Amino acid sequence: MKKFINAPERVLEDALAGIAAAHPGLSVDVEGRVITRAGGARPGKVALVSGGGSGHEPLHGGFVGPGMLDAACPGEVFTSPVPDQMLTAAKAVDAGAGVLFLVKNYTGDRLNFQMAAELADDEGITVETVLVDDDVAVQNSTWTAGRRGTGATVFVEKIAGALAEQGGDLAAVAEMAKRVNAASRSFAVALSACTTPAAGRPGFELGEDEIEIGVGIHGEPGRRREKIRPAGETVATCMDAILDDQPLEAGEETVVMVNGLGATPLIELYVVFKEVAATLAAKNVTVARSLVGNYVTSLDMAGVSITVCRADAEMLALWDAPVNTPALRWGV
Amino acid sequence: MKKFINAPERVLEDALAGIAAAHPGLSVDVEGRVITRAGGARPGKVALVSGGGSGHEPLHGGFVGPGMLDAACPGEVFTSPVPDQMLTAAKAVDAGAGVLFLVKNYTGDRLNFQMAAELADDEGITVETVLVDDDVAVQNSTWTAGRRGTGATVFVEKIAGALAEQGGDLAAVAEMAKRVNAASRSFAVALSACTTPAAGRPGFELGEDEIEIGVGIHGEPGRRREKIRPAGETVATCMDAILDDQPLEAGEETVVMVNGLGATPLIELYVVFKEVAATLAAKNVTVARSLVGNYVTSLDMAGVSITVCRADAEMLALWDAPVNTPALRWGV
Repeated sequence: MKKFINAPERVLEDALAGIAAAHPGLSVDVEGRVITRAGGARPGKVALVSGGGSGHEPLHGGFVGPGMLDAACPGEVFTSPVPDQMLTAAKAVDAGAGVLFLVKNYTGDRLNFQMAAELADDEGITVETVLVDDDVAVQNSTWTAGRRGTGATVFVEKIAGALAEQGGDLAAVAEMAKRVNAASRSFAVALSACTTPAAGRPGFELGEDEIEIGVGIHGEPGRRREKIRPAGETVATCMDAILDDQPLEAGEETVVMVNGLGATPLIELYVVFKEVAATLAAKNVTVARSLVGNYVTSLDMAGVSITVCRADAEMLALWDAPVNTPALRWGV
Repeated sequence: MKKFINAPERVLEDALAGIAAAHPGLSVDVEGRVITRAGGARPGKVALVSGGGSGHEPLHGGFVGPGMLDAACPGEVFTSPVPDQMLTAAKAVDAGAGVLFLVKNYTGDRLNFQMAAELADDEGITVETVLVDDDVAVQNSTWTAGRRGTGATVFVEKIAGALAEQGGDLAAVAEMAKRVNAASRSFAVALSACTTPAAGRPGFELGEDEIEIGVGIHGEPGRRREKIRPAGETVATCMDAILDDQPLEAGEETVVMVNGLGATPLIELYVVFKEVAATLAAKNVTVARSLVGNYVTSLDMAGVSITVCRADAEMLALWDAPVNTPALRWGV
């Protein structure tokens, strides 16, 4: 294994120290493993807290800041954070209007966020939880009952975060988060596995001409393996899966993300985006907004995920609202 | 070779189509291979044009937009663009105040930009050229006489671009570009080679525990190969090279970029940034601004480059000025 790390057991601690040094807009509790906004809580604002295993950067710490999350709880690499982290975060950011937990659908994350919600409730903090489960590749998988939560997390955090910033109450912000999740579908493919620092070797092996169709963001198995094909054909497979699950009508608008899983060159992501845009254009579906880049990664996996969100005018307006985080920044 | 492409000979064309589809703020001439701002030229503004081989995305097309470049000319992967592209770009963006060519120091780029400058001159367009040559690893290298141009390009394009946006004349903008280049030093290390679509196999081979010290952004050889060490030690090697070449005094301010070369997980870039920040802090040098992410890549190379710019107050103010490009966006 070759990685830019000091030691496998120090990766998270060192990375958090680096995040703290790079982003003065964040307050990073390296020991407690909680990232919050440096500015503190704004009275009366609903607070958004997310988290999950590390290795998916910039998710979630890179989305903490005005217009998006109030706090992120990073676990060890590909390991759920513990309830104490979420409780610490909830106490730090609760400003009297309640806290929304945004949880990717993995069993460990669900259980630990649920326990944290109960602990927070004991302390008089009102918590709502919204699950993200957008990955249409498989119904159940390693660490997941039901669908996996992947790329839609970015859309949920951005759009619900904007509504919270504008003064939406806890019920309204939670409802919006659910709406965005329900409107979003994702599908991923991989050319290679990722290597966790602790394991030191790839999580699976693909042949020199093989691609994993429907892979998860920890390298969980997808639907099948097949021979590599031209990008247009691979994208067609992904888009068929997405659109079979959620058909889109001519005239509808979407937010689309073509997301690199960590080791995919940006030039390839643009090739993929071209194919995605062409697929939607052929159906007279509009790509109203888009992201192309590394937003929800899987360490050093070479792969790409596509997320399509059917967006109404309210969602698009919230998408356009100012955001000031390490990974998404506009309007400020 | 496994890549998300349709065919090796179509990569640039497809990627440009994807860039066009993703970024309504850009105007992309896919045939002519020129990217300009969708808004066109603003009368009286000095126009900045850059370019070079593709495979370094988001460089340069991702830096086209208000506050930064007016045009980018992408060549084929790792291949200089041709003079016709720069001439087309210069004619498209010249707004009467002249055109500044920002050229990374590679022989092909230099020659072709020089020819384009002569052709532009024939057409009555005033052109100045500034070379970027910040990589301290080696003096000469494959395709380069003198030092290679790498990460500092981002700093030059941002800071000179801001001055042009604020109304600086051609001489002043060129002078600022030279100042930023002269104040910047870079050094890169790689854990793996990259694979160009045309070659289909890695440009060099590293052993399972080897790291290339001082690598170039096309995989050009560096100073030496050595066994992989903890990130802190590797960063010390890089920072020694940078600071030996340009010592920094206590109290000085810097802009620092920790840049992924394409396949490096963001969590590792933050580990590296922690070490860079600690090195500078130990010298009482301030990291006034920073970038951590993939800005000047080398396709799918696993590696990292560090760029340190000794920044004065004027440079920092220009750094903070609004920018609205696909890859850098703030203040708008």
